[in-house]
Amino acid sequence: MKIADDPIVSIITLLSDFGCKDPYVAEMKAVILSINPQTRIVDITHEIEKFNIRMGAFVLASATPYFPPRTIHVAVVDPGVGTKRRPIIVETRRSHYVGPDNGLLMLAAQKEDISHVYHVNNPHFMLPRVSRTFHGRDVFAPAAAHLARGRRPSQFGPEIKEYTFPKFAKANLRNGELSGEVLHIDDFGNIVSNISADNLEKMGIREDCPLHIQLGGKTLTLKLCSAYGQVPAKTPLAIVGSSDFLEVSINQGSAARMFKAKIGDPLRVSLASSS
Amino acid sequence: MKIADDPIVSIITLLSDFGCKDPYVAEMKAVILSINPQTRIVDITHEIEKFNIRMGAFVLASATPYFPPRTIHVAVVDPGVGTKRRPIIVETRRSHYVGPDNGLLMLAAQKEDISHVYHVNNPHFMLPRVSRTFHGRDVFAPAAAHLARGRRPSQFGPEIKEYTFPKFAKANLRNGELSGEVLHIDDFGNIVSNISADNLEKMGIREDCPLHIQLGGKTLTLKLCSAYGQVPAKTPLAIVGSSDFLEVSINQGSAARMFKAKIGDPLRVSLASSS
Amino acid sequence: MKIADDPIVSIITLLSDFGCKDPYVAEMKAVILSINPQTRIVDITHEIEKFNIRMGAFVLASATPYFPPRTIHVAVVDPGVGTKRRPIIVETRRSHYVGPDNGLLMLAAQKEDISHVYHVNNPHFMLPRVSRTFHGRDVFAPAAAHLARGRRPSQFGPEIKEYTFPKFAKANLRNGELSGEVLHIDDFGNIVSNISADNLEKMGIREDCPLHIQLGGKTLTLKLCSAYGQVPAKTPLAIVGSSDFLEVSINQGSAARMFKAKIGDPLRVSLASSS
Repeated sequence: MKIADDPIVSIITLLSDFGCKDPYVAEMKAVILSINPQTRIVDITHEIEKFNIRMGAFVLASATPYFPPRTIHVAVVDPGVGTKRRPIIVETRRSHYVGPDNGLLMLAAQKEDISHVYHVNNPHFMLPRVSRTFHGRDVFAPAAAHLARGRRPSQFGPEIKEYTFPKFAKANLRNGELSGEVLHIDDFGNIVSNISADNLEKMGIREDCPLHIQLGGKTLTLKLCSAYGQVPAKTPLAIVGSSDFLEVSINQGSAARMFKAKIGDPLRVSLASSS
Repeated sequence: MKIADDPIVSIITLLSDFGCKDPYVAEMKAVILSINPQTRIVDITHEIEKFNIRMGAFVLASATPYFPPRTIHVAVVDPGVGTKRRPIIVETRRSHYVGPDNGLLMLAAQKEDISHVYHVNNPHFMLPRVSRTFHGRDVFAPAAAHLARGRRPSQFGPEIKEYTFPKFAKANLRNGELSGEVLHIDDFGNIVSNISADNLEKMGIREDCPLHIQLGGKTLTLKLCSAYGQVPAKTPLAIVGSSDFLEVSINQGSAARMFKAKIGDPLRVSLASSS
Repeated sequence: MKIADDPIVSIITLLSDFGCKDPYVAEMKAVILSINPQTRIVDITHEIEKFNIRMGAFVLASATPYFPPRTIHVAVVDPGVGTKRRPIIVETRRSHYVGPDNGLLMLAAQKEDISHVYHVNNPHFMLPRVSRTFHGRDVFAPAAAHLARGRRPSQFGPEIKEYTFPKFAKANLRNGELSGEVLHIDDFGNIVSNISADNLEKMGIREDCPLHIQLGGKTLTLKLCSAYGQVPAKTPLAIVGSSDFLEVSINQGSAARMFKAKIGDPLRVSLASSS
C-alpha cells in the first residue's frame, strides 16, 4: 500500500551464509545498484551457518512476512553453485524470491502461496561473464535488480513445475506428548523448537501451565511464560517466542549454553500435571 | 539544515544487542519500511553486549551527536521486555529517542536537553498483535516510523515526568588523583575510561604530560599522546580518544588484552611528576 | 549510465577495520548524511583484520569494479592516523577513492587508471574539530560527502605526484612452477592465492588438469575444478574463484582449517603430469 504511493522505490532483501568480512555481499549490492540505482537494499542476515539451508530457510521465512508486498527477496545458501541445481524465481501472491533451487526459498514462499516458479536461464539478465562459484553476484543479484525494474518473471526463463522443498520435521502429538526438534538457536541462546503456538493450543497448553520438557537427556519442569521477566534473572523458562514457536530460554542468559542444545536435537513436551 | 531541503527523507537509527545472525533486525526494518518506505535506516550497532544497558547508553550517546537534527533513534537493550517497564519516546531539542524506559536512551538524550517524555501506549501505532518478547519490532519500530511520517510524540500516549536514568559512575578528583572506571572496551582493545578531557584539563594535565595510571593492580607510567603513532608499534600510551574520554591504548595492538581490562574496572590517574 | 538518469543519487562505499560493535562506523555515516542526505551509503566491510592494509587493499580492489561509475569509495585501515601520513583523494577514470596515503587505496585505483592524487588539507571540508585518532569521521567522511555534492577533488588540496603503493608479491613462473603466496582467507575458509587465472593460462593449465600444490610443507594433488560440487562434500579441490585467483578449497568445508593456512604463506603450483 505504501509502496504504491511511490512506484520507483523497490526493496530487495539479501540473506546469505557469506559472513561480512569478504567483498562478496558488497559485490551483490554493487551489481544491484548498477542495474537499478533506486533500489532499497535491506540485509536480512549474512550470518547463516555455512551451507545450512534449513537455518537459512527458517530465518528467511521468519523475516519476510514483515516486509511490504512486492518486496524481492534474494537468498544464497548454495552448496550446489555451479552444478546442475537451477537458479529460480518464485512468484508468490505477495513477493518474489530469487535464489537456488535447493529448498532455501520455499518455506517462506509457501506461506505466501506460490503462484509460479521459473528457471532463470536467460543470459540477457545475468552478468556478461557468469562464474561457477558465485551466482549470488552473477545471476541472482542481476535477476532481482531487473525484476525491480519491472521485468516479468516469465522473461527470465521457462516455468517449472517440479522444484525442491526443504525437509523440516513437523512436530507430532502422540499419547499427550509433543515430539519436535530444535529448529534454531538464536544469538541470545534461546532454543527455538519446531513446536508452534498452534500445536500447544491443540494440546490445551496455555500460559502459566507447567510443562515437562525433555531435552538433551534431561527433563526440565518449566512454566509457560509470556515474558522473560516473569522469572528471576538467570532462571529457565518456556515461552512462545516472536516467531510463534515454543522456546526454552533463560531470563538474561543463554539457554543453549546451559542445556548444551544444538540445531536438530529432539525435544518432547507434555503437561506436567498430566504425567 | 540539509534535511530541510528535502522534507520527505527522514533518518531512523537502530541500536540493539540482537546480533546479526537472526531475523530480528530485519523484522524491525521491514516494519519501518512498511509504514514509511521513504525512511533512511542507519544501523548504529547490533553488537551491544547482551542486556548491557550501560554499554548501549554509552555507544548511543557517542554516535547520536553526529546525526542531523530531527533524526529518530531507536534503541533496544531490553531485559524487561513484556514486564511493567514502559515503552517511551523522548523528545529533545534535536532528536527523538524511542525505546524502553530503563535508562538506555537517557545519556544521549540528556546531552541534547530533554523536552518531554511520553509513555507509548496508543495501540493505534503498534503492530496489530504485540508480542511480549519483541517490542523492538511490535512497538518501537512502528512508533519510530509513524514519528517519521510526521506524528507528534504526544499522539503516542501521555507525557510522563518520572523515568529511569542510567547509573554512570562519574570520575572524582581528590588529592590530585582522578578516580574513574572503565566505561567501554572498543573493538581495537582500546580501554575507554569515564575520565573526560574536561576532567584532565581541570587537573592541569595536557598533551605530553607523563601520567601514572593504576589499572588492574598495576601502575603504568604513560605519556599523554595525541596520536597513536607517537609511540612505537605495540607500545602502550594514554590518549584522549574520539569520544573525548581518556583511553589506555596500544599503538597497533590491544590494550584490553595486554592489561586484561574489562568494563567497570577501577582506574586512577595522577600526574607522574606530582607523585 | 544508470546514475545519469538520476543525478542527485550518489553512492559512497565504506571499508574499514573498525568492527561493528562500536559507534565509529555510524559516526562516519552520520557525518556523511549531515552533509549530503541524498547519499546512498554501502558498506563493503568493516571486518578487515586490524591494521592489515594488504587485506584491506585486496578486498577493496575485489569489490569496487562492480560499483557504478562515479562511486566514491572511502577506506580506513589507518595505523598512522594523526601522524605525518597524508589524507588523500585519488581520482581514477571511473571513481574516487578517499583515505590514508598508506597504499590501501592504490590496488583498486590502479586497476581503473589513476588520473590525479590530491592531498586533502583544506579545513573547509573537514569537521570543525579534527581529532588525531579518527580521520575516518573527521576528514575522510566529510571529504567524500562534499565530493558527492559535486566539489572537484582539486578543491580539497594540492595535487601530489608521490604516494605510497601497497607491496604485493607477484606470482613468479620458473622451471614450470608458479610461486606465489596466500593473499586472503575468506569466511568460508577458501585459501585465495595471488596466482591469477592469467598466470595459469600462461602455464597451459586449464580446467580438469591435475595440479601439485605445495602449501604448508605438504604437497597436495588436486584437480583444477570449475565448481565446488565437482568433488564430493568435504573433499579438497583447486578452483579459480570469483576474484579470478587460484584458490585451494574444500567442498562444503574450510580449507584454511584443514591445511592450517594463513595470509602470507608461500604456495607453489605445477602440473601434476609434468612432474
